Amino acid sequence: MRPRTLVSLEEALEAIKRTFKPGPVGVEEVGLWEALGRVLAEDVRAPIHVPPFRRALMDGYAVRAEDTFGASLENPVRLRLVGRVGMGEEARVALGPGECVEVSTGSMLPEGANAVVRVEATSVEGREVLVHEPVVPGQDVMDVGADIREGEVVLRAGDILTPARLGALSSLGLRSVRVFKRPVVAVISTGVELVMPGEPLGPGKIYDINWITVCSAIRMVLCEPLFAGTARDDPGELAEMMARGLSRADVLIATGASSVGSSDIVREALSDLGARIIIDGVRVKPGKPTIVAEADGKPLFCLPGHPMSALMTFLVFVEPVLASMAGLAGIGRPEVRARLASRIIPDVGRHNFVPVRLSRGPRGLTAHPILKGSGAITSLSGADGYVEVPEGTDFLPEGREVLVRLFWPCWPIGRSDLEAQARG
Amino acid sequence: MRPRTLVSLEEALEAIKRTFKPGPVGVEEVGLWEALGRVLAEDVRAPIHVPPFRRALMDGYAVRAEDTFGASLENPVRLRLVGRVGMGEEARVALGPGECVEVSTGSMLPEGANAVVRVEATSVEGREVLVHEPVVPGQDVMDVGADIREGEVVLRAGDILTPARLGALSSLGLRSVRVFKRPVVAVISTGVELVMPGEPLGPGKIYDINWITVCSAIRMVLCEPLFAGTARDDPGELAEMMARGLSRADVLIATGASSVGSSDIVREALSDLGARIIIDGVRVKPGKPTIVAEADGKPLFCLPGHPMSALMTFLVFVEPVLASMAGLAGIGRPEVRARLASRIIPDVGRHNFVPVRLSRGPRGLTAHPILKGSGAITSLSGADGYVEVPEGTDFLPEGREVLVRLFWPCWPIGRSDLEAQARG
Repeated sequence: MRPRTLVSLEEALEAIKRTFKPGPVGVEEVGLWEALGRVLAEDVRAPIHVPPFRRALMDGYAVRAEDTFGASLENPVRLRLVGRVGMGEEARVALGPGECVEVSTGSMLPEGANAVVRVEATSVEGREVLVHEPVVPGQDVMDVGADIREGEVVLRAGDILTPARLGALSSLGLRSVRVFKRPVVAVISTGVELVMPGEPLGPGKIYDINWITVCSAIRMVLCEPLFAGTARDDPGELAEMMARGLSRADVLIATGASSVGSSDIVREALSDLGARIIIDGVRVKPGKPTIVAEADGKPLFCLPGHPMSALMTFLVFVEPVLASMAGLAGIGRPEVRARLASRIIPDVGRHNFVPVRLSRGPRGLTAHPILKGSGAITSLSGADGYVEVPEGTDFLPEGREVLVRLFWPCWPIGRSDLEAQARG
Repeated sequence: MRPRTLVSLEEALEAIKRTFKPGPVGVEEVGLWEALGRVLAEDVRAPIHVPPFRRALMDGYAVRAEDTFGASLENPVRLRLVGRVGMGEEARVALGPGECVEVSTGSMLPEGANAVVRVEATSVEGREVLVHEPVVPGQDVMDVGADIREGEVVLRAGDILTPARLGALSSLGLRSVRVFKRPVVAVISTGVELVMPGEPLGPGKIYDINWITVCSAIRMVLCEPLFAGTARDDPGELAEMMARGLSRADVLIATGASSVGSSDIVREALSDLGARIIIDGVRVKPGKPTIVAEADGKPLFCLPGHPMSALMTFLVFVEPVLASMAGLAGIGRPEVRARLASRIIPDVGRHNFVPVRLSRGPRGLTAHPILKGSGAITSLSGADGYVEVPEGTDFLPEGREVLVRLFWPCWPIGRSDLEAQARG
């Protein structure tokens, strides 16, 4: 057996990027109702002027501004009221000299008018309106296209469709929009001891955790998980399951497939599959036995089986790839400063991701490192975030201030977001 | 007409809370696959011990610790190998004095064994295993229930179901979970000028924006929007639409229903409906004509029609109510510090929410106030967040550092979240 060459975290991430050049997997058209949170696949140009007609910005009277010049409270100008244009109505009347038309805020301005006198500056005598103030041409009128001109780029490819942006699309009369397809990610759990929840638990068996943790984490990156099943200890079965998963997905993840006991089976399955191994072991903790391979140009990740390690390696190696494939700039997570409740003795030769639980005291946040020995559930559901300790750091004492990146909340970052700009 | 009494922002929020005492609207059971991001409705107690059997924590040999006492490299203890327990297998063999059983990490420990000797501390001679190191009882053994004891509370009501928490539920064998129901929120747009996107735009008409902005914002609070249609200028029609919406929803929102032109129609509709008006005007900007009413114990919000004002008043008045009804502690949004690009002249007698656009320069973030005069789309899609200027503040000069609360990203805050704890 040849010795495996462990690469550094940076080398691994670089090799993944270089090999897969991850990017969007396709474009689809969805209705506005389904589009919340999706990523715009192309620039949106306004198909119409907004507003599409000259709009009154005040309740009052549409006038020819010239007719009001010289008007004052003592010397009002008298205009003949020739009609009314309500909200949402077509202005069927045209304005001649000395005439005015009653309008509401948002009404269409009649032809011949070029300004609005607000109602407070007028009084009415029969069919005549007395104007007490002069107005200038264009006063309280919003021109055609003054908000958005036809052809103008309103939203850009890569924008995440927020409530406000969906509103902008609606204002243009668009009822559907082209967004990046959600990449499909097949997930396999491996381990003879694994049982799915709801099934009876035989002796020696435990319930699988990773299937739902990883599938849920996939959803957070705007991808669609596809749980392809649990593989036992047969390389042929695993290879077949992987092939089936890959045929229906853009990416494949197998958890529990990189530990000492199962790595031979996985290697055999990858070989059966004709997969090319890109990375075979990384100087990270957890995640040293992580395998990244390529089959049919698609990425294939073999992650550890320990639930905390599976989640951590997913975030480090898989999430950035999925984010790019979903058309995102990345995934945002809050970072907080906290003091260590106990020292961290990292593995000096690896980049360490140390899960921590946070507690809040009178002097701020405290980070409690979660030890490797903790049970699978305790360490998984107890961790609020993690601390990174790079290769070569030998010791972090109790009380040291550290930066904790939270697992939750997390949010997709669009290419146009400030956060993304700050990074780039 | 009696003069309306405008209440302060704080009075309005207090009256809303006091009247509706918003809380969860119900409980439903969903599968783990559908449960991501939902809010747990009750504490989850472990129905089983985890691990459910004594587990080996190392690859090696299950032994009686007493048999290894005194073992050393020079003086190994010889144990008879009586079997093997693989991962996921039942331990069918029982251990007598002087015997050992081969185990893998995660294997079930056979009866009679009380410790594991790691494989590195052994050598094999035929059917005998030479143990070079003593072990103590319990060494490298995880006891039944050592991770989670049966009956222990693993997750609490109010917890948001993150990927890790769903993993914890799965580890307990649970395939479904009881979560708070999503409150249903009916939305009505009002305005004779409004046309739905995709429809032809007649003269004097504009496309509706608020239907999708508000419905999308509702989704962000884990509620289910129900668009109930566009009401024209007939109070009877509006009342009927409101009644129909309320009969199918827990909350009703009508936008464009509180402006000068439409407020009489709305008041008539509310009266037809038998609704009790709780708040009729608030000293906020935007949102002064906001109406909050109660019908059949359900909250009914009439918000302004200007899209930026509709979104802003939704966030201020409606979102906290919906969050409580969804079982949340609130909605989180990033807050950033920025310098004003231009002065803000607030309405001194009101609490001002000033939308701003952010830009990043060499000296940090700059907040550009968005003026009231801006077009509907420009101001909606251009705003990154808002600055609050409380009643009584008369002026914020250019260059002043302000706190900007972003509209996006936003995330639900569970009752157990650190953020929520910090508030409480």
